[in-house]
Amino acid sequence: MLSKKHLLAAAIGLSLSFSTQASELETLINMLHENGMVTDAQYGRLMDELAANKTTQAQEKAAIDEKLAEATKPSDVEISTQGGLTLKTRDGQFSTKVGGRVQVDAATYGGSPDMGDGTDIRRARLYLSGTLYRDWGYKLEYEFDNSSITDAFITYDGFENYQIMVGNFKDPFSLDYMISANNTMFMERALPTAFNAGRHIGVMGARNSQYWTVAAGVFGDTVGNTGGEDDEGWGWSTRGTLSPINEPGKLLHIGLGLNYRDLQPNNTVRFSQAPESNVSGVRIVDTSAIDNADSMLKTGLELATVIGPFTAQAEYIRTSVDRDNISNADFDGWYVQSSYLLTGESRPYKNGVFGGIKPNHRVGDGGIGAWEVAMRYSSLDLNDGAINGGEADSMTLGLNWYPVPMLRFSADYVHVLDIDGGPDFDGKKPNVFQVRSQWAF
Amino acid sequence: MLSKKHLLAAAIGLSLSFSTQASELETLINMLHENGMVTDAQYGRLMDELAANKTTQAQEKAAIDEKLAEATKPSDVEISTQGGLTLKTRDGQFSTKVGGRVQVDAATYGGSPDMGDGTDIRRARLYLSGTLYRDWGYKLEYEFDNSSITDAFITYDGFENYQIMVGNFKDPFSLDYMISANNTMFMERALPTAFNAGRHIGVMGARNSQYWTVAAGVFGDTVGNTGGEDDEGWGWSTRGTLSPINEPGKLLHIGLGLNYRDLQPNNTVRFSQAPESNVSGVRIVDTSAIDNADSMLKTGLELATVIGPFTAQAEYIRTSVDRDNISNADFDGWYVQSSYLLTGESRPYKNGVFGGIKPNHRVGDGGIGAWEVAMRYSSLDLNDGAINGGEADSMTLGLNWYPVPMLRFSADYVHVLDIDGGPDFDGKKPNVFQVRSQWAF
Amino acid sequence: MLSKKHLLAAAIGLSLSFSTQASELETLINMLHENGMVTDAQYGRLMDELAANKTTQAQEKAAIDEKLAEATKPSDVEISTQGGLTLKTRDGQFSTKVGGRVQVDAATYGGSPDMGDGTDIRRARLYLSGTLYRDWGYKLEYEFDNSSITDAFITYDGFENYQIMVGNFKDPFSLDYMISANNTMFMERALPTAFNAGRHIGVMGARNSQYWTVAAGVFGDTVGNTGGEDDEGWGWSTRGTLSPINEPGKLLHIGLGLNYRDLQPNNTVRFSQAPESNVSGVRIVDTSAIDNADSMLKTGLELATVIGPFTAQAEYIRTSVDRDNISNADFDGWYVQSSYLLTGESRPYKNGVFGGIKPNHRVGDGGIGAWEVAMRYSSLDLNDGAINGGEADSMTLGLNWYPVPMLRFSADYVHVLDIDGGPDFDGKKPNVFQVRSQWAF
Repeated sequence: MLSKKHLLAAAIGLSLSFSTQASELETLINMLHENGMVTDAQYGRLMDELAANKTTQAQEKAAIDEKLAEATKPSDVEISTQGGLTLKTRDGQFSTKVGGRVQVDAATYGGSPDMGDGTDIRRARLYLSGTLYRDWGYKLEYEFDNSSITDAFITYDGFENYQIMVGNFKDPFSLDYMISANNTMFMERALPTAFNAGRHIGVMGARNSQYWTVAAGVFGDTVGNTGGEDDEGWGWSTRGTLSPINEPGKLLHIGLGLNYRDLQPNNTVRFSQAPESNVSGVRIVDTSAIDNADSMLKTGLELATVIGPFTAQAEYIRTSVDRDNISNADFDGWYVQSSYLLTGESRPYKNGVFGGIKPNHRVGDGGIGAWEVAMRYSSLDLNDGAINGGEADSMTLGLNWYPVPMLRFSADYVHVLDIDGGPDFDGKKPNVFQVRSQWAF
Repeated sequence: MLSKKHLLAAAIGLSLSFSTQASELETLINMLHENGMVTDAQYGRLMDELAANKTTQAQEKAAIDEKLAEATKPSDVEISTQGGLTLKTRDGQFSTKVGGRVQVDAATYGGSPDMGDGTDIRRARLYLSGTLYRDWGYKLEYEFDNSSITDAFITYDGFENYQIMVGNFKDPFSLDYMISANNTMFMERALPTAFNAGRHIGVMGARNSQYWTVAAGVFGDTVGNTGGEDDEGWGWSTRGTLSPINEPGKLLHIGLGLNYRDLQPNNTVRFSQAPESNVSGVRIVDTSAIDNADSMLKTGLELATVIGPFTAQAEYIRTSVDRDNISNADFDGWYVQSSYLLTGESRPYKNGVFGGIKPNHRVGDGGIGAWEVAMRYSSLDLNDGAINGGEADSMTLGLNWYPVPMLRFSADYVHVLDIDGGPDFDGKKPNVFQVRSQWAF
Repeated sequence: MLSKKHLLAAAIGLSLSFSTQASELETLINMLHENGMVTDAQYGRLMDELAANKTTQAQEKAAIDEKLAEATKPSDVEISTQGGLTLKTRDGQFSTKVGGRVQVDAATYGGSPDMGDGTDIRRARLYLSGTLYRDWGYKLEYEFDNSSITDAFITYDGFENYQIMVGNFKDPFSLDYMISANNTMFMERALPTAFNAGRHIGVMGARNSQYWTVAAGVFGDTVGNTGGEDDEGWGWSTRGTLSPINEPGKLLHIGLGLNYRDLQPNNTVRFSQAPESNVSGVRIVDTSAIDNADSMLKTGLELATVIGPFTAQAEYIRTSVDRDNISNADFDGWYVQSSYLLTGESRPYKNGVFGGIKPNHRVGDGGIGAWEVAMRYSSLDLNDGAINGGEADSMTLGLNWYPVPMLRFSADYVHVLDIDGGPDFDGKKPNVFQVRSQWAF
């Protein structure tokens, strides 16, 4: 009986990988053998059969496990249709995004001289962008409203936190201009965006971190410009930002920008500005072409803060045009704007710019979306010496409604407080009421 | 032995969730116990082991079931590549569609004065459209052939059967014009489409149901128009349709449309029309600019029927131009057209317009596609008082082949029966033979 | 006891489909029955229970197998995001591709008269293409840089190896021009591409096989051309190629092309060429408008070979302009170019054209990408009789870096060796250094 006990002990030690239901059978067989109910020969045969079946079972279980693992493995490509189309490989090597935006405006003007009431597609863009082999990125975006290429570039992101960009994109300069037009606080940027640096074909290096960013690039001319027998224009631009406080709902931002353009191709430059409304296309201040212009240097100072639902943002930009045999022409402008999100959201901030508002509680999901009220004072001085471009000051009240992410409806009332000089609007105080519908992603 | 029987009875009541193979073992053990082959102590141990193993088995089975459920769950995003790209989340919250069309034409002209034979890309469009958070929709479509934005809008569909639209889209007016150019019976719409209301930036409400539709909107000007110092034009448009009979292969449609445009910005309007062919670009009737035009009102009456493979469609449109200090200028036009699908399909109809033909039996799948013959009589009168735009009548024979869904090949023969007046074609009877290849989705 | 043995034997013959763990139990039961430990009645009950459980088990197993098969079945749609977006149904019936390209150039010119240094977006395209019902294909591609439609067509591929195309696409003529601009050896094609046949709206048949290709088509005019009252131009084009040696890394290619254009619409034609650089837009040779031109016939001869990493390619093109009442004007040009892939790749070849280089070892994956050095001699003679367009010869050195598939960075140095005649550059030897960044897929 020793051997039986021994075998029983051995049997208890066995474990089946798939299912353990045979263990009680093994126990029973051992007991029956021990009790003398089965012969030693029978016992041997039973034990052999038991062992063989255990092996088979284990194999079957392994096969099922393998198939289950395969079947429940996440797919290689993640797909998102929440606005356009985003596909990403799960390994981070590749991604593709198809996106776009449409901004439809209507405006009515008051004051004199009157500007034309009307409607406008302010922006209508599609883009294709993506990631190639983890470290490389590409983008092509087209503005259908004025048939122009906006972004068209390659990026290299293989050095951690650093980015190299080559192609056509925005010169790094001015917070107001660097913020996507989808995400500005008002329908139009402030008056000093007359000094924005625009997009050019060039090469840029950038470094982004939570508490500071630096970007610097060298640029040729705009996409549309072909020099022919003359050299095209060129320039450089740099922007640095500090955000010593930068956490969700809490921000202090300080920025400094420098932008230089060689103006030799045509030796001319012109600044003008609409009353923070682009439906009529009328400009309230305008320097006309400034001749003998060799180059210009723009200097910008930025300040911004976020405290919960409250945002404040201010900029000062000075533009100095270096003229041949004539003294420099200096212009400047500034604005202060702030907004309050009545529904409690905070304006997001990343890599030195503000992002778009996402409502906490969507319409259609028990919420009323996000509601934001905003106020701005802007000033732009295009008078200097003999150049009588005009000086304008304006005050804007804004209301933004974000019913769901990616949609925005805005209403702005702009009151131009005073225009001093300039070609057509000296002493006038035009006002604008305008609305916008926007989808963007 | 009572206890043994009791246990046996209990054992029979047990059911294993995963597999029942142990039940005969339990029966055996009970029998052996009952027969006195195993001791009570052994029996107890066996039963404990059996119970423990049953629990383990049940857990294993549950784990496999869970994984299987996960693995066989339909994916969150449904993908279709049957022409462009459609992605939908299964919960109906989001969708994205990339689509387009290309129409390539060739035409040869006869009669005198001759028009230029040639080829043309009639339409080449891409669009991105989609759904956001179930209730919101968006679209941007661009016409590459003439570099213009066609559709660019947001819709709100949160109220059942109602739709609100804001952006750029077709004014609701005229059945012929509301039918997508992909789906018209002939390559070109009938002569009275000289009075189509076009696309404008505006806001529209619509109500669609099986037996009637109503749409009404207020519109600003076209996308390209910027008023500058003058107000842009504006207008309103409304269209109602009744379809008291509306089931697959059986339709009676009655429609009425009104379209008003303020013409003050330029105080001018012009109507002209090609001979239902756009390859040469030559116009056979043309009012030239009508000055002193204050506003115009278009009135349209629509009739259509479908009886199996037979479709008939007719419209009458009257345009009345209100002129300053001069009597109104009134023009009108009408057409009757009908087609027969030789291969038995029926023209589909939904929300007050006809859709596209899908062949019952595809080429490549044992079929010859869908074949359609069609005939049309059109008339357009642009003569009124001193305005000598010309009156034209034309007759068209058409043949359409739809080898597979989304492809269409058409051949049209247009014979202008008579031209009475107008600048260049008075008394002429030009004719056109034209063909088209089209993909669209 | 016979029956017991009999049953035992029967039991051994049984096999369970799901798991065989019960077989030892059956053996045991038979043994116990044989040994008289269970009664015949008990034995019968046990055997019935065993059989019932076996059936249940088999059903459960089948259910799991079915679910596993469903869960591990490949999805119907294959998705690739490796550059743009490709979706294919696994049955080959449908596919959709969204792709594009961006080429950003910078150039500096030397010699005299100077041309303007600058930057340029050379090409910026997006396209949508796909397959419908296996046999049909479609494409629409747009060039955003000059706002023009490039490809817009339908193909029918239902006859094996044959293809029918209708729409707008390249006339089949000249190896250099048939190779995609993404894949040319240098940034710009050779001087004789002044004679390329361009894209027109037409119909083409093509036959592709490993050792030869033939394509022939009849074409109308370009997309932008609308004849108005005059007939548009038309032409025909054919190209045949032989590749008696055609295996990976080994190629001998011979090609012949003929291209005819009727020039009657304007009775004029003009040839000009830039110094293999398009940033400044300046042309170094130019015939100006040649009047009295009735038609022209271009004849091209192509030769190419690949031996491992080495590629050589040469073409000669002659253009003969048939003039009314004046003797023909004959022009010609040729080039020889060769390259060596330092990293060992071979230039791929298919259907009579070269494809793009894919690096053997990618940057970011332990490699340095593919590096290619190239050299070219080009010649173009636009002088004939009274026509003094100029003759130019140039030499180009090129360097291409393909860090990963779909990206390319190029640097070319072009030295114009001599210009003989022509409007502005007689006797001049301008040179160009230019660089390009490219993404394309």
